[in-house]
Amino acid sequence: MNKAEEFKKYVKKIQYYYQALSLIRWDIETGAPKKCIESRAQAIGEISTYAFEMSTSEKMENFLNELSLPESKEKLSDNDRALVRVMKRDFEKQKKIPPELVGQLSVASSKAQAAWEKAKINDDFSVFQPFLQEVLLLTKKMADCIGYETNRYDALLDEYEPGFKSNDVKKVISYLKKELVPFVEKITEKEVDDDYSFLKMKVDRQVQRKLSEKVLRLMNYDHDAGRLDVSMHPFTTSIGANDVRITTFYRDNDFSDSFFSTVHECGHALYEQGVSSELADTPLSSGASMAMHESQSRLWENIVARSHEFWEFFYPETIKIIPELSSVDMERFYRGINTVKRSLIRTQADEVTYNLHIMMRFEIEEALINDRIKVSELEQIWNSKMEEYLGIVPLKASEGILQDVHWSHGSFGYFPSYMLGNVYSVQIYNQMKKDIPSLKDSISNGDLKVILDWLREKIHVHGKKYEPKELLAMITGQEPDPSHFMEYIKEKYSHIYKI
Amino acid sequence: MNKAEEFKKYVKKIQYYYQALSLIRWDIETGAPKKCIESRAQAIGEISTYAFEMSTSEKMENFLNELSLPESKEKLSDNDRALVRVMKRDFEKQKKIPPELVGQLSVASSKAQAAWEKAKINDDFSVFQPFLQEVLLLTKKMADCIGYETNRYDALLDEYEPGFKSNDVKKVISYLKKELVPFVEKITEKEVDDDYSFLKMKVDRQVQRKLSEKVLRLMNYDHDAGRLDVSMHPFTTSIGANDVRITTFYRDNDFSDSFFSTVHECGHALYEQGVSSELADTPLSSGASMAMHESQSRLWENIVARSHEFWEFFYPETIKIIPELSSVDMERFYRGINTVKRSLIRTQADEVTYNLHIMMRFEIEEALINDRIKVSELEQIWNSKMEEYLGIVPLKASEGILQDVHWSHGSFGYFPSYMLGNVYSVQIYNQMKKDIPSLKDSISNGDLKVILDWLREKIHVHGKKYEPKELLAMITGQEPDPSHFMEYIKEKYSHIYKI
Repeated sequence: MNKAEEFKKYVKKIQYYYQALSLIRWDIETGAPKKCIESRAQAIGEISTYAFEMSTSEKMENFLNELSLPESKEKLSDNDRALVRVMKRDFEKQKKIPPELVGQLSVASSKAQAAWEKAKINDDFSVFQPFLQEVLLLTKKMADCIGYETNRYDALLDEYEPGFKSNDVKKVISYLKKELVPFVEKITEKEVDDDYSFLKMKVDRQVQRKLSEKVLRLMNYDHDAGRLDVSMHPFTTSIGANDVRITTFYRDNDFSDSFFSTVHECGHALYEQGVSSELADTPLSSGASMAMHESQSRLWENIVARSHEFWEFFYPETIKIIPELSSVDMERFYRGINTVKRSLIRTQADEVTYNLHIMMRFEIEEALINDRIKVSELEQIWNSKMEEYLGIVPLKASEGILQDVHWSHGSFGYFPSYMLGNVYSVQIYNQMKKDIPSLKDSISNGDLKVILDWLREKIHVHGKKYEPKELLAMITGQEPDPSHFMEYIKEKYSHIYKI
Repeated sequence: MNKAEEFKKYVKKIQYYYQALSLIRWDIETGAPKKCIESRAQAIGEISTYAFEMSTSEKMENFLNELSLPESKEKLSDNDRALVRVMKRDFEKQKKIPPELVGQLSVASSKAQAAWEKAKINDDFSVFQPFLQEVLLLTKKMADCIGYETNRYDALLDEYEPGFKSNDVKKVISYLKKELVPFVEKITEKEVDDDYSFLKMKVDRQVQRKLSEKVLRLMNYDHDAGRLDVSMHPFTTSIGANDVRITTFYRDNDFSDSFFSTVHECGHALYEQGVSSELADTPLSSGASMAMHESQSRLWENIVARSHEFWEFFYPETIKIIPELSSVDMERFYRGINTVKRSLIRTQADEVTYNLHIMMRFEIEEALINDRIKVSELEQIWNSKMEEYLGIVPLKASEGILQDVHWSHGSFGYFPSYMLGNVYSVQIYNQMKKDIPSLKDSISNGDLKVILDWLREKIHVHGKKYEPKELLAMITGQEPDPSHFMEYIKEKYSHIYKI
């Protein structure tokens, strides 16, 4: 076996422990008996420590050093070269962080998460504040260990969106702020006198499940390489090669919420189901970045599954499953699922206002990480930013500053992925429209395979082989460009709202 | 931390990898996407190899040597002394087996199981044959590594029933053959003119599930420390502390089969749910032996749940769930579920003929392991043994040679446990009757807690602390003695069949 083969064997070996960890976590979220959690947490601790040790071992260092030599590099296949690059990047980052700090942050964030849950139930930010303080402190230390040029936030952002800097995010935000805020203004000034109460009618959970199963088949989700379950918060997880699982939830009075969650998660899952089998069981067998992943889920959820052409095909199918909808004509249904509203909760926001929620989160967390604001000021800053961007102020902390779990985990730098994902999604879709002139007709005939085939070839098959900017340039020939998103939003919603 | 504490910490560390492996295996049997099996088998191979390496490491050897010194031993608690004994026994056995062989067998058996499932669906032994061949080859290698005095089979049997030899099994078989074969003869000669077609009526799977859930509650199965799922072949697995899962199956026209499977598996699960928490996450947190385990499942399935007194309470409950049964009087129902028949499928066999199925399996596998017969001859030998012991021959491989999963797992030496379990179960129950004079009344009042409490105290709490012969002697003051079983069978069935 040559060095590259040996290296890959070692990488896969590590990956099998991550498979086990992913399965354990999936199991906990989907139905593990509650009394086992304590013992299972010990198992997670043990196995993840071992996997981390292997990833940062001398053996790994030797592999990476040897395979990074110019004379070794030129002999590597494209895939192997990418694998070395990604592993080296992670290795170097991991080596910079003292294991004690990893341990401290892990303890602090599990305490912070418990405090966050309690604070949210009691609508009391002060319960969470000291714990968040601690997590923030350790996260800043982590960023300092990793290093950065001018902005400490960059060290964190890079984890989720390799190759991106705070300034890139700021540029996107400044464009969207100029364009989006006045457009939302215009829409919400428009008075709409339409009855969308059908969206809140009671639909049996079994029926909701049928609807989810139907759309999964239509999207060509491979059930032999995944499964659909129920969890409190919907998620997608790749356990390993050919095993990409999704979850959804069913609430009695919100069938569309469950439906779009399923479509969203399926969008993530199709990405990972489509990665080349040559990359299987390596870290390349996932998405290029968080935002590229989000571009896939958003593309399916919003651009496809909230489009007029989609419902031309799918509305009659939906009525077969939920006959009570037959009294609602399709145009009203279409407007109902595309209602724009200034709302408090990010996860329930429509595709127009969604980015406003992200902008304020970015601005807050970037300032926090750079010590320009304090944790004690957070609630007040949150509320004034809500006022500024969305024109509404939460009355309860649970609907404001306490709504998201991310900061309790120490996941600072994650939020921009959602916005960049929206931006990429339209940019990618516009290219797809150029390449497939009959795209709209295909969708209105229920043929979504053309979309999947295109995404597979252009994006999915590459997995994590390219960095997001590089991949986007390969597909569209362009840098990330939010004007695509803005044009899409303006065209679609000017039509719906007749403005 | 003293040596004993350090040792236990190390043992638990290893145990967490076995937790992961158990979860992976459970997942494969209950719903993992089929395309992932190959990659998952690799993960099983890797993780089991590592767990095996830790179990056979120099570190383990040092712990065991040190803690086995007379001066260390006397300082250990009873539990710790037992742990050292069990680990030392396993260590010495494992040291004899090369780690590669363990990995190979693990991979081969995952693949063989998938092939077995396919073969069974297609009724085609040839699909399974090469995979079984491979598993058998590796199992024999394993037995040779472990070593034995006169019979290679002893090396395997000892794994499931410590302290037992092939000759012990042969002795029980020879007693039962002498007593049981003529008794079955007598019963099956007796003409019975009774209508048991109600056992084959169509019962909705959801209704069957309700019946299973009902009996699990009655048996005091702890749902917060386990869960009920569906698999092709029902089983029980302890993933870890407070996580003992069971599976059953539902067939449209066989509600009683599903019901008794659930009771059987719950019997296993109650054993492991009842092990002292002091033994949690160590190898002592399981049953004393496979046969002792089987004694628990059989005790609940046959002695309790097929008894007249049980149905005095549970029949009215069953009619509430399956109202179609109300036209069947309880005596007919009782005779129906206690019908003795020469049948093809072991898991569906009645408690009288069941041991005949085991005898032939023991004879076949003992001959296979000792190279007296070949895998290619298996189907034909199976059919002729069926003819000899049970007077019937399967027409389909799925009802003959392919009916059991065991050999695909490489679990040669396991089958005798079922027979010994039957033998122990009656022996234990006879003691329970002595200790609890009002036992029958409790059962007919639906109070099964008295049974569980007695079993918990006498058996479950000890886990694997004692060897089976030792434990049986502690409970009953006797050696394993099949005459208890024979008397029980004769008394019960002479009454039912009026012979």
